[in-house]
Amino acid sequence: MQERVMDQAAAKPLAGLLESVCVEQGGEVAAQAEEEFRRGIKRLLGFSPAMYTPGTVPSGGCAVFLGTVSRLQKNSDFADLRPDSGKIPGADGFFIKISGKKMVIAGQNEAGALYGVFRFLALMQTGVARDGFELSETPKSPLRMINHWDDISGSIERGYAGRSIFFRDGRIDYEERRIADYARLLASVGINRISINNVNVRAQAKLLITEEYLGDVASLAAIFRRYGIKIFLSINFGAPWSLGKLPTADPLDPAVAAWWKERAALIYKYIPDLAGFLVKADSEGEPGPFQYNRTHSDGANMLAQAVKPHGGEIVWRCFVYNCAQDWRDPSVDRARAAYDHFMPLDGAFDDSVILQIKFGPYDFQVREPLTPLFGALKKTRHVMELQITQEYTGHQIDLCYLPWLWEDIMRFDTAHGPASTITELVGPYKKGSSFIEGFAAVSNVGLDRNWTGHTLAQANLYGYGRMIWDPSLSAEEIAREWSELSFGPGDTARVIAGLQMSSYPAYEKYNAPFGVCFMVTPHLHYGPNIEGYEFSRWGTYHRADNRAIGIDRTPSGTGYTNQYSPKNAEMFANPSTCPENLILFIHRLRYDYIMKNGETLLQNIYDTHFEGCDEAAAMLEKWKSLKNVLEVEIYESVLDRFERQLVNAREWRDQINTYFHRKTGIADKRGRKIYD
Amino acid sequence: MQERVMDQAAAKPLAGLLESVCVEQGGEVAAQAEEEFRRGIKRLLGFSPAMYTPGTVPSGGCAVFLGTVSRLQKNSDFADLRPDSGKIPGADGFFIKISGKKMVIAGQNEAGALYGVFRFLALMQTGVARDGFELSETPKSPLRMINHWDDISGSIERGYAGRSIFFRDGRIDYEERRIADYARLLASVGINRISINNVNVRAQAKLLITEEYLGDVASLAAIFRRYGIKIFLSINFGAPWSLGKLPTADPLDPAVAAWWKERAALIYKYIPDLAGFLVKADSEGEPGPFQYNRTHSDGANMLAQAVKPHGGEIVWRCFVYNCAQDWRDPSVDRARAAYDHFMPLDGAFDDSVILQIKFGPYDFQVREPLTPLFGALKKTRHVMELQITQEYTGHQIDLCYLPWLWEDIMRFDTAHGPASTITELVGPYKKGSSFIEGFAAVSNVGLDRNWTGHTLAQANLYGYGRMIWDPSLSAEEIAREWSELSFGPGDTARVIAGLQMSSYPAYEKYNAPFGVCFMVTPHLHYGPNIEGYEFSRWGTYHRADNRAIGIDRTPSGTGYTNQYSPKNAEMFANPSTCPENLILFIHRLRYDYIMKNGETLLQNIYDTHFEGCDEAAAMLEKWKSLKNVLEVEIYESVLDRFERQLVNAREWRDQINTYFHRKTGIADKRGRKIYD
Repeated sequence: MQERVMDQAAAKPLAGLLESVCVEQGGEVAAQAEEEFRRGIKRLLGFSPAMYTPGTVPSGGCAVFLGTVSRLQKNSDFADLRPDSGKIPGADGFFIKISGKKMVIAGQNEAGALYGVFRFLALMQTGVARDGFELSETPKSPLRMINHWDDISGSIERGYAGRSIFFRDGRIDYEERRIADYARLLASVGINRISINNVNVRAQAKLLITEEYLGDVASLAAIFRRYGIKIFLSINFGAPWSLGKLPTADPLDPAVAAWWKERAALIYKYIPDLAGFLVKADSEGEPGPFQYNRTHSDGANMLAQAVKPHGGEIVWRCFVYNCAQDWRDPSVDRARAAYDHFMPLDGAFDDSVILQIKFGPYDFQVREPLTPLFGALKKTRHVMELQITQEYTGHQIDLCYLPWLWEDIMRFDTAHGPASTITELVGPYKKGSSFIEGFAAVSNVGLDRNWTGHTLAQANLYGYGRMIWDPSLSAEEIAREWSELSFGPGDTARVIAGLQMSSYPAYEKYNAPFGVCFMVTPHLHYGPNIEGYEFSRWGTYHRADNRAIGIDRTPSGTGYTNQYSPKNAEMFANPSTCPENLILFIHRLRYDYIMKNGETLLQNIYDTHFEGCDEAAAMLEKWKSLKNVLEVEIYESVLDRFERQLVNAREWRDQINTYFHRKTGIADKRGRKIYD
Repeated sequence: MQERVMDQAAAKPLAGLLESVCVEQGGEVAAQAEEEFRRGIKRLLGFSPAMYTPGTVPSGGCAVFLGTVSRLQKNSDFADLRPDSGKIPGADGFFIKISGKKMVIAGQNEAGALYGVFRFLALMQTGVARDGFELSETPKSPLRMINHWDDISGSIERGYAGRSIFFRDGRIDYEERRIADYARLLASVGINRISINNVNVRAQAKLLITEEYLGDVASLAAIFRRYGIKIFLSINFGAPWSLGKLPTADPLDPAVAAWWKERAALIYKYIPDLAGFLVKADSEGEPGPFQYNRTHSDGANMLAQAVKPHGGEIVWRCFVYNCAQDWRDPSVDRARAAYDHFMPLDGAFDDSVILQIKFGPYDFQVREPLTPLFGALKKTRHVMELQITQEYTGHQIDLCYLPWLWEDIMRFDTAHGPASTITELVGPYKKGSSFIEGFAAVSNVGLDRNWTGHTLAQANLYGYGRMIWDPSLSAEEIAREWSELSFGPGDTARVIAGLQMSSYPAYEKYNAPFGVCFMVTPHLHYGPNIEGYEFSRWGTYHRADNRAIGIDRTPSGTGYTNQYSPKNAEMFANPSTCPENLILFIHRLRYDYIMKNGETLLQNIYDTHFEGCDEAAAMLEKWKSLKNVLEVEIYESVLDRFERQLVNAREWRDQINTYFHRKTGIADKRGRKIYD
């Protein structure tokens, strides 16, 4: 954010050491690692270090080694700084060591070296990198992916930070420097995959896989490639007929398979290292194998055959549910859909297919249980999908620090065996295990000058990269890191980290209560509309009446809880052991149900909504305390958002409280104002 | 609709008589009357009559006189057919007489003659015009106006019959023959004014009053002129600054007044008989005099000075209310707005200003009381605004025959004096009286082949013209007329007239109950959304809780009822005398309130909703009985709409019933299915 040269005194211990660097010759990514090191030092310390390739090293030798671990092991100048056998980094990992007058940054591969450079620069800024420092890290997630929902028109579905950085008016149209900066941003937190176009591939976006666009796609891919990032393209499953003019897109039709093979060959001619295709099929109106009475494995495996010869993979979304539901029919439970559709197919997918599963069974709600597929799938590659863009979490108007939620997600124990928390399950796929191979998340970035609309929402993009790199990190550590890197270590960073940490609980309190979900303005998904989805076709109902609220998803209801491991099924099915922040997702409860704090459910609804709004007001006041220490532009733009957030929080508080007061006629026991 | 030549036998009594016609030379409208007579006879009887001008009449004389009353009085050939002194028609009226071998159609003016021709053709078709027939008619409403809400883009705000017939892609772009057909359609029911562009004058539409568009506006005006129809232009009150680049649009600023005078002079150079401007000011975000702390009379009078020298008038809409209301504040009552704003200004408006007042205090709801301004204004010209396009009445998907409602409106007694029903108040303005000078209504017409989307919705356009011509007509008479003219006299017409007559009561039953209004999908305004406006900024709340529903608008509440004459104020304020179809507009009632039929309010809500849906189902079955007697295209397209209407009616029934069942926990006493 703020350009700055570090305090020279603080940097002194390292300054001498950083003046000469031995860099290994390598590919594009290695060259970028070298360049990032040079630029970083220049920006932070004000000088460009001398960079030598092995043959040109001066007689005194270099202070710094930058390269891969395998070269380090052969470089006798740095023999003392080699990692112990237990500290040799794994795939995409790095090793950093500072000892006396020498330092090494060694990647397991070129990307690892790049990540090591970025990490070193961050650690130097925050004063952690000093003599004696040693760090070996390997990302837990092999796949670290960003999804863009950018439309070719330039608008972004669920984008709250301006127009697309990739597209404009039906063309690929971008500022090269901005894309390079974005690639740097992503690589600095370890992202290695990006899909550039919306998963809803409609109208002209279908032509992205034609020669009309592929040249421009290749130019984009070339920018990301330097940063170790491969691109995915979102494709439309119906392309063989909508684009190819075949009579069908049936995945078992040989002509369809041949069409995709030919199409893939063409695409890979332009982008030889394309990561593959991202597919939303049979979902919210998109075409898919169900149209032809085929299974999702039929569809995905056919596509896999097309990209596999080129080293590509298919990422197949599991967001498949009946979106034309009749609210009158309580027998259909949308929450069951992903498990019901995909669990029976475990083992049926090709090894080049990766399922992408939303973290919860609904759709990125403020609070949902974990989708029961996690821990249950044993024979299918899969990643978890998160959402960085704040669709249901405040549109980057309201501050809502998402790593707070993600930490809870990572700590969830699927109870499918020992070491079965999400944190423990993240890792390279092994057949027969339930490893989650990584994460995908919907980007929150657009053309806004500060990237994310709300300046403080940058922490969500940063935090996503950090947390999927190491799911054992806490939201608090990440908030502190981001705040210090953005505002410098000190009181300001502490206040801002505190704001981040208080934001999710506040948002959750003034939102739909206790995991009931979807009391939000239809389509827009900002602000309250308590019955907005109640009679709709989307399958997301709360069925509040004058006595009770919620859907019974226990075995006496829809049976959703039985999709979990026995231990979790039992835990969820019993209201006294079900986590209270999810209790209305799982149970239908009377308003006079007594919660753990001894108050009724209704009183808890009132209390949380008064508190959430008060907390939003407090955040605004806290921000105002920073008026004199922040750049005016940042201060004012965030101030404006906190003010809008408070208006939103008031609407939530008052509409929710009035709604339940009207429903029940029961007053707030503390006598606070509830409108008639 | 269906092109047809009449049964020759049925026409025989008139056929000989119609072969020679004496037509007076006159202006464009007279020429059109002649042409319409010739075309009509040709279409109905298969031949073109011989048409003679007075100097060319053959020795045997003509059988038919077609011209003005003043010429008829001087034409000795038709001396026996002159009207008695009591039957001489007034402004825009006509006299028709058939006697032996002669017939006259004589207008009070050329337009009257044209209306007489159309009426004669209709009466001949329906077998009413025969020997001995005599009819003298004068329209009760001097101003008979249609408002188009057509945007210059070609879309129509609240249009349900395709794109605009006037505009396309930012240009005036029309098929000349279609516009002439439309003018014929309007003139055939007596319309004499039309505004061609949306009252929300935004973006490029502001340029309609510039030379970029005025030539095209003039060409359109020329087509309508032949049919006696003058056009209005909707203008933007802010034009002096948005278009003219003045620093203000303050109506009391001499530069602003001068700008409008100059602009009017330019416009009238292109369209010398322009009727004037239609203005929506200070309404739903449009600019207006309030911005400059001026009154609406200041604004309207200033504009009047600009158009008056050219014979123009200002039609000024009274749809002024606070559209940024806080739902928490029960002290603001939108229903009061028109009266509160305009009653104090009675007498302050220039005599070239005509206020256009929506029939009800809200906005074209299915059932609203009459705006209390009617009968109360004594020193201000005004017209009543109706809506033909089915914004809240079913989008021309659901059949909803509006003259049913309009008949109730016409019969409403303002009780401001003797002869104070709306029917009795309609007539030419006289200072000191409360005469309503006519009507304006929003068109339901677009580019759809059948003009109105739903073929049977044509009856609403037809019925509007007929009912404002003669407010004493019944909805039933009009339904019969339209059905016979459209489908020929007989059983089919009887069935269709019956469908029309049953449609409004059915729609009203399954809609928001008992005048409570606005339980409709926000913005779209089709289908139920019971709390859709409940927490919005639009001021339209029902505040249903677990015991009661409605807003108290009596003196113990917002005092709205006191805006009426003392007799009506008393009648409305007492629930036992308030009409029950409006009772929830005026009163907040408990669900156990006993209505006149001895059932509770709640049970009445359930009953009407079951009934309304059943009636929609019955209409569908009735329509199916016409399968073999109708043209396939008409049958199928209307069938499709009845099927969609039934889906809609079911949604209304089930959502309303479920909503109140959830709110109260009280079951339907007849045990019908209400979903949980």
